[in-house]
Amino acid sequence: MNILYIMFDQLRFDYLSCAGHPTLHTPNIDEIAAKGVRFTEAYTQSPVCGAARMSAYTGRYVSSHGAQWNGYPLRVGELTLGDHLRAGGVGCWLVGKTHMKADIKGMERLGLSPDSVIGARQSECGFDVWCRDDGLWAVGPDGPYDAKRSPYNEYLKSKGYEGENPWADFANAGLDGNEIASGWFMKNADLPANIDEADSETPWLTTEAIKFMNATSEPWCAHISYIKPHWPYIVPAPYHDMYSAKDIVPVVKDPAELENPHPIYEAFASGRVGKSFSREDVREKVIPIYMGLIKQCDDQVGRLLRYLKETGRDKDTMIIITSDHGDYLGDHWLGEKDLFHAPSVKVPLIIYDPRESAEMTRGTVCNDLVEAIDVTATIIDAARCEVPLNVVEGRSLMPYLQGREHPNPRTYAVSEYDYSSHPVCREIDVPAKDARMFMVATHDWKLVHCEGGLPPMLFDLANDPEELKDLGTNADYIDARAAMYVYLHDWSLRMSQRVTISDAEIAKKRQDGGQTGVVLGLVEENDVPEAWTASYRGSAPNRSKR
Amino acid sequence: MNILYIMFDQLRFDYLSCAGHPTLHTPNIDEIAAKGVRFTEAYTQSPVCGAARMSAYTGRYVSSHGAQWNGYPLRVGELTLGDHLRAGGVGCWLVGKTHMKADIKGMERLGLSPDSVIGARQSECGFDVWCRDDGLWAVGPDGPYDAKRSPYNEYLKSKGYEGENPWADFANAGLDGNEIASGWFMKNADLPANIDEADSETPWLTTEAIKFMNATSEPWCAHISYIKPHWPYIVPAPYHDMYSAKDIVPVVKDPAELENPHPIYEAFASGRVGKSFSREDVREKVIPIYMGLIKQCDDQVGRLLRYLKETGRDKDTMIIITSDHGDYLGDHWLGEKDLFHAPSVKVPLIIYDPRESAEMTRGTVCNDLVEAIDVTATIIDAARCEVPLNVVEGRSLMPYLQGREHPNPRTYAVSEYDYSSHPVCREIDVPAKDARMFMVATHDWKLVHCEGGLPPMLFDLANDPEELKDLGTNADYIDARAAMYVYLHDWSLRMSQRVTISDAEIAKKRQDGGQTGVVLGLVEENDVPEAWTASYRGSAPNRSKR
Repeated sequence: MNILYIMFDQLRFDYLSCAGHPTLHTPNIDEIAAKGVRFTEAYTQSPVCGAARMSAYTGRYVSSHGAQWNGYPLRVGELTLGDHLRAGGVGCWLVGKTHMKADIKGMERLGLSPDSVIGARQSECGFDVWCRDDGLWAVGPDGPYDAKRSPYNEYLKSKGYEGENPWADFANAGLDGNEIASGWFMKNADLPANIDEADSETPWLTTEAIKFMNATSEPWCAHISYIKPHWPYIVPAPYHDMYSAKDIVPVVKDPAELENPHPIYEAFASGRVGKSFSREDVREKVIPIYMGLIKQCDDQVGRLLRYLKETGRDKDTMIIITSDHGDYLGDHWLGEKDLFHAPSVKVPLIIYDPRESAEMTRGTVCNDLVEAIDVTATIIDAARCEVPLNVVEGRSLMPYLQGREHPNPRTYAVSEYDYSSHPVCREIDVPAKDARMFMVATHDWKLVHCEGGLPPMLFDLANDPEELKDLGTNADYIDARAAMYVYLHDWSLRMSQRVTISDAEIAKKRQDGGQTGVVLGLVEENDVPEAWTASYRGSAPNRSKR
Repeated sequence: MNILYIMFDQLRFDYLSCAGHPTLHTPNIDEIAAKGVRFTEAYTQSPVCGAARMSAYTGRYVSSHGAQWNGYPLRVGELTLGDHLRAGGVGCWLVGKTHMKADIKGMERLGLSPDSVIGARQSECGFDVWCRDDGLWAVGPDGPYDAKRSPYNEYLKSKGYEGENPWADFANAGLDGNEIASGWFMKNADLPANIDEADSETPWLTTEAIKFMNATSEPWCAHISYIKPHWPYIVPAPYHDMYSAKDIVPVVKDPAELENPHPIYEAFASGRVGKSFSREDVREKVIPIYMGLIKQCDDQVGRLLRYLKETGRDKDTMIIITSDHGDYLGDHWLGEKDLFHAPSVKVPLIIYDPRESAEMTRGTVCNDLVEAIDVTATIIDAARCEVPLNVVEGRSLMPYLQGREHPNPRTYAVSEYDYSSHPVCREIDVPAKDARMFMVATHDWKLVHCEGGLPPMLFDLANDPEELKDLGTNADYIDARAAMYVYLHDWSLRMSQRVTISDAEIAKKRQDGGQTGVVLGLVEENDVPEAWTASYRGSAPNRSKR
C-alpha cells in the first residue's frame, strides 16, 4: 500500500460540501469521504503554518519539538515521519510545501553538510524531495521572503512567463489595463489571475504528484502539499467568477466580542488584518475567490483520483485529505488564523483506507476529538511501521478506520500558539518567552491559557457553539475553568523528551542490576538473591561460599 | 580566570563541618566556604547520578533534556556547558566522572562518527576529555556494568595491582585472611581497602587534576568529578578507622512514616536497600566509613588548594564545590537516593569567586533557593560567555556572589525523578511513561507530584523540618497542596524547547513582515503603512502610484 498524504494550506474545516458548506461543491473530496472516514473534530497542533507542519511531520506537540512559529528551525536530529517510515522500508517523499526551516547552526555544530543525503533529509524535515515549493515567493526591499529556489517559478519561466518572479506577476496578480494588479491588494481579488489555469499553482503541483507516482518505486508515502487556498486571494479563470457574494455564508461575529476583550484577542482584532476582514465588502470580495481556490483544489483532487483509477492504484493507495489550519475570513472580527476559534484551529480530515479491514467504516463520520499528530501516527501505523511511543505523541486513528473501539481516545484536544515573533507580542508588551498560548478543548468547553500573567479565555461550546462569548474571567465559570485546567496540567507534565530510549529498552533495564555486578544494599553473602546467577567472579560477591 | 568545577558523588549537603556536621571536620572545603558563598538551599535536578549530571552539564531540567535516568542517552545535538563556553573562547574539560551515555543511534542517524572531534564531544556531553572515569567498574555474569575502558584500572595495573579488575579487588575490597572481602558487602565496610591510600580513587583523580592544570592552556573550566564518597562504602587506611559509631549523627526516622505510606515510598523503604539501611548495625558500620571517604575527599581538596597557592593560581581560579545528589544513609528508613527528602535531594554548594567584585560576600551564607542548573548558568556567566536564555534554564548566581539583589530569585525549586527503569516501577505496576515524580519546594513546603494517578506527598517544612509526616492526602492541607500545585503548573508550561532561535533573533523577526514582500490585510495601495520602504518592485505592492 502507498499513502497519499494530501495537505492543503489554510483550508477551513467547513469549506467542503461533505462538511456541510451549502454553496461550495467539492465532489471529488466528497468522493474520498464517501469511501473513507471524515473526522469532524480534528484540531491542528498550532494555527500557523510552520509550527503546525513541524508537528504534522514529527507527530509531536509544538512545545515538544520547539519549532513554534514560521521560520523557527526544527532542531537537528528531531525524528520525523520519514525516519519512522524509512526504518520500516517505506519511502517518504515531498511534493510541495513544508515550511521547514533547517537548523543550520545545529547542523554546523554537528559537522553535517546540507548536501549529504543525511543533511538533505535533516534540512527537509525528513522527506526525500521530489519537489519542494513553499509557495510564498514574495520579494520586498529587504529581499525575498523565502530565499530558496522556486521550482514553480522555474516552471513558469520555462513556459514563457516573463520577469524575475512570474509567481508574483502572473500567478498571483491580475491585470488592470496593462498594469499588474497585485494579488496582495484584496481589492484585486476578483480579477482573474493573469495566467493559464493549467499553469497555476494547484494544477502544476498535481502534475508533479502524478509524475512522482509514475516514477517512484514503492512502497511510498507522498506528502502532496498544496499552498492553496492560502492567500494571496486570487485565482485564474474560470474559478474567479464561479462564486459571488450571494454564495458566502454569513459572518460569525457579535459586537459584544469587542467589549472588554481579552488583550490578545483585542490586539489581533484591531490589527490591519482584523480590520480589513471586519469589512463586509472585503469578505464579499475575498470569500468567493477563496471558494474558487478551493473549487480548483477539488478539481485537482479529481485529477489525482482519475489517475489512481486509470492505473488501478485506487485499490492500494490510502488517501488523506487535511489542512495545516483554517482561515477566519472575518469571523470573530479576524482574518488569517493565529487564534483558537473553530474556523482557525479546526482542520478538515478525511482518511480513505483501501484495505478490506476498513470496509465497515466507509462513508462514515467520526466525531471523536482528534489531532493533527494523530494523522502522523496513523500513517506510520498504516504503513505497518513501528510507532515509537516515546517519540510520537500522536495516537493512531486506525481503530476508527477499522470500526474498533479506540483503546486510547482523546479526552481533550490541545493546540498551541507562540506569538513571540508577531507584532502583537510587542503591542501588548509581553516578553518573548511568555508569548505563548495553550488551547484545551473538549466537546463542551474550550479553554485558552495564556502565559505572561494574562487571563484565560473560555468558551461554552455546548451552549455557545459559535464561540461568541469569552467566559475567561466570568466568575460563574470558575469550576468550568478549573476542570479544563486539570486537563491542561495533565498534558503539560506529559513525557515528551525521553526520545533516546524506547519503552522496551527501559523494560529491559528494569532488572535488578546485579547481573552486571552492581549490587546495592547487601550486608553479607546471604543477602544475594537466589534468582541471581550463582557464580560471581572477581569483582562481584561470591555466593558459592554460603 | 579559570574555573574548577568540583563535583563529588553522593555527598550529602550536611556532611561538611561548614554545614554543621558535629564530628566530621572538613577544613579544606571549609576554607573555600570562608572565601566564598555557601548555599544552604541547593537542590539537585534529580536525585540520581545520570539525570542530575545531564542537567548540570546542559543547564536544563531533566524533562527538558530527556536523559532521565542512568544510562538514558543524552540526545545528539543537545547543547552543553562545553558548547556555551567554547563559543566564548573558554575550554571545557573533564577530569573524572560524567555518567554520560552517548546517543549512538542518534549519532548514527546523523552520520556522526564518535572518533571525530565533534563526535567525541557529543559522546562526552560537550567536554574535551583529559580523563574520564565514571568509577563503577563492577562486573557480573552478564559482563561489565560499564563497558568503557577505565583509566583508573589501567593506573592500578601499572602500579602492580594484579588481576583484571583491581578497582574491585583492591580499591573496593578489604582482606579477610587471604581472601578478598568485597566492598559490596557492607559487613566489610570497616576493613581497610587493600590499597595504598595514595593509589586510591580520590588521590588518583586529584593527581590527574593537577596534571591537567599544569598541561593545559587557558582559559579553561575543568570539571573535576570524583566518584567518592559514593558506594562501595570502603576506604583505605588511615580513613577506615578515623570515625566510629559514636561519631555518627542520630538517624532521622519515625515508625509513623511506615504507617499508611505512599506506595512509591513504601516500595523504596521495603526494598533491599531500605531494609539494610534501616538496620542500626548497618548504619554504625557504614556511616563512619562514609565519613572517612569524605575526610579523604577533603584532604584531596587540600592538595588542590595547596597547588593553586603554590602556583599563585588561587587568585584567578574560581572554585565550585558541589555534589550530584545526597545519600539517605538510613534516614526515613531508606538508603541511596531516588526520593526527595533533604538528605537525598539537597546538595552542598560552595562557590569561591576570586575577583574583587565578590569581596563583600566572602564567607557568607546564602539561604535562597537555588538549583544545580543555576551553577551551570553561573559558570557561563562567570566566564563572561553568553548565557543563552532560550536554552539554559538555570539562573546565574553571580548576583549572590557580588552581593547584589538577585533580579530573578527562585520562588520554588524543582527536582524530578524517573523511576521507569527501577524495580519499584514493576513492583507498583506503573507504566514506564508514568513512572515520573516532580518535587516543588519552597522554604516552607515540599510537594511531590506523582504521575500515574498516584497521590502526592506533602511536607510542612516550617513545622516538620525533618520531613517525618507526609501530608499528601491529609484533608487539612488541601490549600497548601493547591498552592504548591500552582508552582508546579507554572513550571510545567515553561518554554524549554525553543532552542534553535534566540530571543534576540525573535525580536528581529518581530517586524511587520512587509519588508520581504509578505503583506497581509491590505485592501488597496493606501493600506500600505507609511513606515514601509516606498518602492516595492515587481512581486510586491507598488506604493508609488498612490
